[in-house]
Amino acid sequence: MLRLRCLLLSTTTSVPFNHQTFYSPIVSCSSLSNSVKSKMETVSYSTKSSSKKLLFRQLFEKESSTYTYLLADANHPDKPALLVDPVDKTVDRDLSLVKDLGLKLVYAINTHVHADHVTGSGLIKTKVPGVKSIISKASKASADILVAAGDKIQFGDLYLEVRATPGHTVGCVTYVTGDGPDQPQPRMAFTGDAVLIRGCGRTDFQGGSSHMLYESVHSQIFTLPMDTFIYPAHDYKGFTVSTVGEEMLYNPRLTKDKETFKSIMENLKLSYPKMIDVAVPANMVCGLQDVESKAA
Amino acid sequence: MLRLRCLLLSTTTSVPFNHQTFYSPIVSCSSLSNSVKSKMETVSYSTKSSSKKLLFRQLFEKESSTYTYLLADANHPDKPALLVDPVDKTVDRDLSLVKDLGLKLVYAINTHVHADHVTGSGLIKTKVPGVKSIISKASKASADILVAAGDKIQFGDLYLEVRATPGHTVGCVTYVTGDGPDQPQPRMAFTGDAVLIRGCGRTDFQGGSSHMLYESVHSQIFTLPMDTFIYPAHDYKGFTVSTVGEEMLYNPRLTKDKETFKSIMENLKLSYPKMIDVAVPANMVCGLQDVESKAA
Repeated sequence: MLRLRCLLLSTTTSVPFNHQTFYSPIVSCSSLSNSVKSKMETVSYSTKSSSKKLLFRQLFEKESSTYTYLLADANHPDKPALLVDPVDKTVDRDLSLVKDLGLKLVYAINTHVHADHVTGSGLIKTKVPGVKSIISKASKASADILVAAGDKIQFGDLYLEVRATPGHTVGCVTYVTGDGPDQPQPRMAFTGDAVLIRGCGRTDFQGGSSHMLYESVHSQIFTLPMDTFIYPAHDYKGFTVSTVGEEMLYNPRLTKDKETFKSIMENLKLSYPKMIDVAVPANMVCGLQDVESKAA
Repeated sequence: MLRLRCLLLSTTTSVPFNHQTFYSPIVSCSSLSNSVKSKMETVSYSTKSSSKKLLFRQLFEKESSTYTYLLADANHPDKPALLVDPVDKTVDRDLSLVKDLGLKLVYAINTHVHADHVTGSGLIKTKVPGVKSIISKASKASADILVAAGDKIQFGDLYLEVRATPGHTVGCVTYVTGDGPDQPQPRMAFTGDAVLIRGCGRTDFQGGSSHMLYESVHSQIFTLPMDTFIYPAHDYKGFTVSTVGEEMLYNPRLTKDKETFKSIMENLKLSYPKMIDVAVPANMVCGLQDVESKAA
């Protein structure tokens, strides 16, 4: 914990980011043809000379409508990367992409103990030695690193800031890209189930509380700059991203006053989550409950 | 046609783009609370003062795994917008987003005559007067504007360039964001089914040809800058984006020599597309075949 808390940015570059600028893979790949390799070197050179850069990919798991996010510091020599909310079923896809892009995966991070799918964190750890799993201390789940509000998760010269956003579950956190000119602009908030696009996560199990969720969102997310991207853990309608400004205007639940919000959340009449009895016990231990059979 | 061919950029700004920078909605919305409105005005002001900006959203239709793309010139006073490959079933979602973002939809564009879903172009035209549909002349389909290689589709100070990429169908085109310092960087290629992420569209119907597809991709897409984003019409594995450089290295079909590629495509043994007999006749007329019942 202390290690994370004490991490500070070591860079002072003031060149603005284009954080959605994915850059091409690295020249060390042995399968490169000579002509492509030559071009890749040029790209790599021009990328390095321009600015620090976040490589970013959004990935979708169709069955549970879950988004996994890949972030990497593409300009750091090690190209350190992390995955936010990986799903067990799509681990091989995600690791293949990490390999293709020439990244070094260092963290598998969860926004909370999911009830609708099994996290891929444990499986990733068995397949990529050295990867550390991360979840909030408040979740009471096991992980290599337990984080709390204010912690910074550093990858290369970039970092994610941890914000406590309980309400969907008692241990939910939102990870927000760093603040300052040497970090991606606009900022990006990985909100888990706290804010969904034009919606929010349910609050009727796992220590959930509509009162708490309302407070979390309004104090920790809606106080971010208006152009901050909102990247949720799920979307069921095919949206991929929103912004803080957009949700402050158009979220049909969170734009209401607190009492109306609580009333909405208490009358959703949702069915019991079909995966909860499998997913939650597994996710309390990084999805590792039956990982041996999966890794086989 | 001439009108499109003659469109030239009228701007000379050299400020680099962050084309993934979505900016917040516009202050004219009557439902804004005073406090939010005040903040939005600040955002809007700072956005306008910085650079021209592409507002970009990727949208997903789960049943046919189709991506629809919303692009707009967010800094132009009219905020002109276009939709690439809209789907009939998600038209209301897309138009709701256009409204929330304060955009003026001007074009509904198709990369080709789809065989797996009905385009939303016709339905959009019935719901938003003034929107023009666009498809390639080579597709032999009906639309308000028929485009060919080299045409430019202007929206505000931004434009899409049309590249002929036949092979999946005889009329397939790829739309590429403009070239130059006043256009989004890196460039973005909306490839339809010509290049999919780590794959490509089938070539066994609608005038398809594996020979032609190979030539199209290698001459029109793989010649784009290596960091050009590839945004396909579909993805079935949960990927959202790739780059030209990545596909030149890792596409399991298109990295092969032409004869091997042809052999792969001729031995896919795919089943007859289940929607083709409904979708293709409808899409030849902008999906309007039974639009009256849908619009009711």
